[in-house]
Amino acid sequence: MELKKLLEQQSAEAWEKYIPSLSIDCVIFSFYENALHVLTVNMKDQNLWGLPGGYVQKDENVDDAAMRILKDRTGTENIYLQQFYTFGNLKRSESAFEAYDDSIWNKQRFVSIGYYALAEHSQVKLRIDQYSNAVEWKLIETLPEFMMDHRAIFDKALLTLREQLNNHPIGYNLLPEKFTMPELQKLYEAILGKKLNRGNFYRKILRYDILIKLDESRKGGAHKAPDLYSFDLTKYNEALKEGLKGNW
Amino acid sequence: MELKKLLEQQSAEAWEKYIPSLSIDCVIFSFYENALHVLTVNMKDQNLWGLPGGYVQKDENVDDAAMRILKDRTGTENIYLQQFYTFGNLKRSESAFEAYDDSIWNKQRFVSIGYYALAEHSQVKLRIDQYSNAVEWKLIETLPEFMMDHRAIFDKALLTLREQLNNHPIGYNLLPEKFTMPELQKLYEAILGKKLNRGNFYRKILRYDILIKLDESRKGGAHKAPDLYSFDLTKYNEALKEGLKGNW
Repeated sequence: MELKKLLEQQSAEAWEKYIPSLSIDCVIFSFYENALHVLTVNMKDQNLWGLPGGYVQKDENVDDAAMRILKDRTGTENIYLQQFYTFGNLKRSESAFEAYDDSIWNKQRFVSIGYYALAEHSQVKLRIDQYSNAVEWKLIETLPEFMMDHRAIFDKALLTLREQLNNHPIGYNLLPEKFTMPELQKLYEAILGKKLNRGNFYRKILRYDILIKLDESRKGGAHKAPDLYSFDLTKYNEALKEGLKGNW
Repeated sequence: MELKKLLEQQSAEAWEKYIPSLSIDCVIFSFYENALHVLTVNMKDQNLWGLPGGYVQKDENVDDAAMRILKDRTGTENIYLQQFYTFGNLKRSESAFEAYDDSIWNKQRFVSIGYYALAEHSQVKLRIDQYSNAVEWKLIETLPEFMMDHRAIFDKALLTLREQLNNHPIGYNLLPEKFTMPELQKLYEAILGKKLNRGNFYRKILRYDILIKLDESRKGGAHKAPDLYSFDLTKYNEALKEGLKGNW
């Protein structure tokens, strides 16, 4: 069905079911093929790219709403999910529904709570719902133009990842259980948005004593197989409490 | 006027004027007498302590609403203000209005956006409004019992200060223009919630090269007058971009 018709049909129910003026947008990150990706949705009829989102039911905690939306989009429940900022400027979203009647649910002013999620690529099953043409992972360096203020929401999410890299288990949640040092470095580089010196990075990360060097190496490839590591979760969590850069 | 009567009288106007279900709570910090304080409000009739807050007008950006509420409470406009978290659990606030009719504005479910503010004590003029018995600065170590979920909101604000201490100009905004090293150390201790070694602290903070040692010292007192410092704002802002603990 055409998107406009669909939303007009659902409007009365939405007014009944959801907290008015409040929405949720999810910035879902995944790290694979040595690069950081984000989940994007293409909106039916309008051909606009944006972040997956939804609304909060009147009888639902806001955090639970975010988990529900995430599950609808990715088919997964045990993803690291963190609220990071609420976007409340006037006219941030209404323009996408210009052709709609003013009384339609979707055309109201919405204040949107941003959540970021860290997802393991292999566990995510993308679902194209009735509002979307497509759901795609995109490289964070080459994102398409986004609808509404979704670019600002994405930028703030990435900035938050960067600021929280020393206090939250971001590496643990974005990497597979076993990873190589070059993979870990690439992840840090993607989040920090800059190249890091290999020697400095290895020295620093090993000094924290949060990694376990495994008795196995990555198979395949022409070169010497690189060593595999995993996080020592007890030590990692302990170190994050103080901040990875050390104590005052 | 009795609080209940007042809110019942204002309810119809509130429904007209504000975005439903959305409130703002402000955690206003100030550092004076070598200790960190927070602004608390005692609610009329109910004799409950809490954080100052308010609602968002339908034609107002959320950030502007926070500034307006802050101005109403403290008479100041140029305070460092930062959104930090949105609190959206079911039943977080309704209980304070149990005796009210269900249709009253204040008894609805509210999702509350938390802002923290850093205020210089000398510039703040406290105002007791029609909803309050008292407005008081309180030491963060000896807070009274708070209404609703305001204790959780305060705790999250303090945790955020702690996490942002290396990336945001928190010291600059909480200290007077000229301060002593013991004052700076006390501020860091209050935010981090622990004693710091004097020698280590001095060495670290001086190594960042963000302070200017002034040609004057603190007058008064029996002991040797301590040196005064101020922030080198250019270097300070530059250092905060990378994070005060140094670069990867």
